[in-house]
Amino acid sequence: METTMDRKALYDITYGLYVVTSIADGKMNGQIANTVFQISSSPAKIAVSINKENLTHEYILKSGILAVSILEQETPLSFIGLFGFKSGREIDKLCQCAYTPGVTGCPCVTDHALSYMEGKVVASADGGTHTVFVVELVAAAVLKKGAPLTYAYYQEVKNGKAPKTAPTYKGETAEPAVEIKKQERTMKKYECGICGYIYDPEIGDPENSIPAGTAFDQLPDDWTCPVCGAGKSEFSEVA
Amino acid sequence: METTMDRKALYDITYGLYVVTSIADGKMNGQIANTVFQISSSPAKIAVSINKENLTHEYILKSGILAVSILEQETPLSFIGLFGFKSGREIDKLCQCAYTPGVTGCPCVTDHALSYMEGKVVASADGGTHTVFVVELVAAAVLKKGAPLTYAYYQEVKNGKAPKTAPTYKGETAEPAVEIKKQERTMKKYECGICGYIYDPEIGDPENSIPAGTAFDQLPDDWTCPVCGAGKSEFSEVA
Repeated sequence: METTMDRKALYDITYGLYVVTSIADGKMNGQIANTVFQISSSPAKIAVSINKENLTHEYILKSGILAVSILEQETPLSFIGLFGFKSGREIDKLCQCAYTPGVTGCPCVTDHALSYMEGKVVASADGGTHTVFVVELVAAAVLKKGAPLTYAYYQEVKNGKAPKTAPTYKGETAEPAVEIKKQERTMKKYECGICGYIYDPEIGDPENSIPAGTAFDQLPDDWTCPVCGAGKSEFSEVA
Repeated sequence: METTMDRKALYDITYGLYVVTSIADGKMNGQIANTVFQISSSPAKIAVSINKENLTHEYILKSGILAVSILEQETPLSFIGLFGFKSGREIDKLCQCAYTPGVTGCPCVTDHALSYMEGKVVASADGGTHTVFVVELVAAAVLKKGAPLTYAYYQEVKNGKAPKTAPTYKGETAEPAVEIKKQERTMKKYECGICGYIYDPEIGDPENSIPAGTAFDQLPDDWTCPVCGAGKSEFSEVA
């Protein structure tokens, strides 16, 4: 057998989407992560993988505590943009959302969260660019019932594509595309050069009241990327 | 704030389902795991959490190699039962499925797999009852396109319940329940004392040609649990 590495094999791994927060020396930060799983039940432990370059990683290393909020399926792109495409070195993310102070001191984000949990780092593994933290939970709470946001669902919504394979993600993105008139299908998509969000005229930008069928050229001049807030000039046509 | 631990918060974490295999001293084994995520892209690394009591854990510790196959949504319960509810100390699991020998020597399971990957353990973290292995991949392959089996989907099918919250999992389990006649709804469910599988007369056991609407008492005497193979005598009525 030849040694081959088809990285697409990794795309089939299933993920949720989470906000991971920490606090150190009185400073709080948080970021989006998709890499969270439970390790053991007694005591309850989870693993969380965080990029070493991120400010949240720095805070976790310093204080040894973190909190994870599990995002709901209805989480708007702008919220993911706040935590996923902006750095806490430049803006104060936590002042832009609701959170409750945890027993560890970590801010537990409650906006768009189904539940949250917090705990102390009890072990870690070096993953090269990332650290895998093993966290023993000290508290956890359910905020509401609902479907968790999965990474696959987020990618469908973010890219505005009709689903290729997953029957589980047909709902909200497929229907507008089906109803759209044929001539509108020829309108071009535009990609944000900052965060990779794709504006698809067949979908529009429902979170900002841009209806399906609106060409990129027809967007208001002050329209900004719903994920990262970049202006129209940062977008380029998708070939 | 009080220190409270609502373990239901952990239920909102999203998982796929995987077969994790290893080989040591010429002996192969594999098991079901839901705890796999990618850590880094260059080089490609994943984290896999495995219970220390499992034979696969013993082999991974000895040889430092493992393979992961990502299961497709259509994976039958009997296949999950083979790898998830039976021990390699008692049976040879790999002789009961198709696999390809990997470049590491690990058997890469191809039955019901969308893709697989294999690699070497380069770090690990002690998670108490489990070890979190950091694995640098040496090979990966895509076998086919399709929807990955998620743990949430598996739970719906396994328990035969109508979906509570997740609109993404309505399809195959909800429809028979809707079509069922009202008097059949009163038929009792039975739970397997070995693996926890719940026989629901509203669903039947389609993999073994038992139609929806078949009461537990009406099942053939030689019917066995589709997950773990236990006989009818191991089942008890769900209160």
